[in-house]
Amino acid sequence: MGLHRVVEPAGVLPQAAWRLDARPEIAPNEVRIRVERLNLDAASFRQLFEKHGGDGAAVRAEVLEIISTRGKMQNPVTGSGGMLIGTVEEAGRRSPLGLKAGERIATLVSLTLTPLVVTDGLARWDGRSEQVPCDGWAILFARSIAAVLPEDLDPQLSLAVLDVCGAPALTARMVSRYVAERAGDARPVSVAVIGGAGKSGSLSLAAARQAGAGRTVGVVPVAAERDALVAAALADAVVLADARDPVALSTAVTSALGVPADVTVVCVDVPGCEHGAVLATADGGTVIFFSMATSFAAAALGAEGLAADVTMLVGNGYVPGHAELALGLLRGEPGVRGLFEARLAAD
Amino acid sequence: MGLHRVVEPAGVLPQAAWRLDARPEIAPNEVRIRVERLNLDAASFRQLFEKHGGDGAAVRAEVLEIISTRGKMQNPVTGSGGMLIGTVEEAGRRSPLGLKAGERIATLVSLTLTPLVVTDGLARWDGRSEQVPCDGWAILFARSIAAVLPEDLDPQLSLAVLDVCGAPALTARMVSRYVAERAGDARPVSVAVIGGAGKSGSLSLAAARQAGAGRTVGVVPVAAERDALVAAALADAVVLADARDPVALSTAVTSALGVPADVTVVCVDVPGCEHGAVLATADGGTVIFFSMATSFAAAALGAEGLAADVTMLVGNGYVPGHAELALGLLRGEPGVRGLFEARLAAD
Repeated sequence: MGLHRVVEPAGVLPQAAWRLDARPEIAPNEVRIRVERLNLDAASFRQLFEKHGGDGAAVRAEVLEIISTRGKMQNPVTGSGGMLIGTVEEAGRRSPLGLKAGERIATLVSLTLTPLVVTDGLARWDGRSEQVPCDGWAILFARSIAAVLPEDLDPQLSLAVLDVCGAPALTARMVSRYVAERAGDARPVSVAVIGGAGKSGSLSLAAARQAGAGRTVGVVPVAAERDALVAAALADAVVLADARDPVALSTAVTSALGVPADVTVVCVDVPGCEHGAVLATADGGTVIFFSMATSFAAAALGAEGLAADVTMLVGNGYVPGHAELALGLLRGEPGVRGLFEARLAAD
Repeated sequence: MGLHRVVEPAGVLPQAAWRLDARPEIAPNEVRIRVERLNLDAASFRQLFEKHGGDGAAVRAEVLEIISTRGKMQNPVTGSGGMLIGTVEEAGRRSPLGLKAGERIATLVSLTLTPLVVTDGLARWDGRSEQVPCDGWAILFARSIAAVLPEDLDPQLSLAVLDVCGAPALTARMVSRYVAERAGDARPVSVAVIGGAGKSGSLSLAAARQAGAGRTVGVVPVAAERDALVAAALADAVVLADARDPVALSTAVTSALGVPADVTVVCVDVPGCEHGAVLATADGGTVIFFSMATSFAAAALGAEGLAADVTMLVGNGYVPGHAELALGLLRGEPGVRGLFEARLAAD
């Protein structure tokens, strides 16, 4: 997990470290990547862009400064990073990642824990986009995750899918569990996805259906998203509701499904959705929180205050097989692909 | 769930409300309690006590002011409340709680969502303890939780147990699931409880063993707690480790159990325990976070960064049957009872 690369403070994991050792020589269980592009986290880029009033040169200078000072790209204000694309340059003989020199990959662990050196001064980047073409190297630890980029897909499209691939994988796992428990039982497994028209939301809807959900609803905040999700045909029902209004959200979900949801997936990055998600979920059901805006205390105290017997999961971005599952959904579901392509075209 | 008692802002649940309507007339699904004692949340009392430099009269005045202004006892700084003891005065004919007039109960939902009126000016309280004798009334909604106080136990002891009874119940549920999945398999289910000598921790250790855990370890931060937990004989092993040090914690757990834990329960209220808990847990295992100091983002990003296939649960304080389970553990396990009595004696 890269502890030997932590320079300061001692004893923490690379993600919590202030500074990493990004030297190019690899340990036998590491992999060195020749980097071709960084994909900055949206929250990080926005903070930098606003701080510098849209001055791209100043944004570029600060990103360079962060990487050279910290040995990784982690925005000190937002704490977030992003991911990268590159080519495997050298794989240590004891690396468990199964990568071979020459393979083109995307990292699925955050830049916040990835040792990184930039060698071209980011000369090809104007500082005005999250996409940062660059030259340099990065190190992957033994406990890491990388996906070989498929040759049949635009790399931008693959990256957008891989960025959120934990959500459909965990959704599929939980829905499958309910489907198995209900075997021989006539009740369909019902699933609600809050933020169903977004990247993680649309993939989660497709994953739920593939895993055997009998009835699904996508909840969206505005009419344009409703129309897009209806056209994508990924959910049995699409409803408009403000996810921060607990009564409105739970009423919308329960009306659309006929019952509260067995599995509710929260994919919208706005604070205050915890109570509505709990209320929209059946006793014995599960809420999966994928939003980084989730408040642990609001979820814990909210469920207790409502005497709600729901299981609440912290959305773990890693589930074995998650990249393959998500890319398969993109390839097999025209509705998912359409939403992703429209989103990329709009960026 | 008491929406009709929310005065402002409109549309939120009672817990999120600034002010509740605490009128004594009950709806058909409500229950009115004659209050005899409030048990302020420790964090709330500490904040008030420190703010007023230990001036009990000032603390009392502020608590009175909060209750009369907000219609509930919710500290505006900490956001927390506490629980109460009282006697059922009137139970609406459609209340699902099963309470009868005259029963002595403790509320298991937070004071932060409980309409409350104090009628004695808190005259019997010196403002210098979390235990607040008082006269007044409180309202329980249809979706609420209350436990009838057992006659064989000191009410203080019952309250201390009921305050944390969600932890052993959820621990038992998860351990039982692993035990059932392993049926016919020789591998014992292993459980680690971080903060094993505390209230929720000691109950969780006892619950894990009762649910069939084959090997348990309690992790504690100081030698005095180690000695107390060893004497209580609630865990197969007791180890000293700083839960904020991921490597130290995971090494301690794995050494004590021989393997990483199938179920790790986090019961210590200090920030920064997420990574260690994830590292201490086996692939396919589960971490249950009961600490309110848990950071959602640290847990989510930490597990992803470690490529750890662990299920992470937000500790829900409500599990059906939780009060009976916890009181049963107190009665049946002298080790649990000893730790609780020692803690009450020290307060």
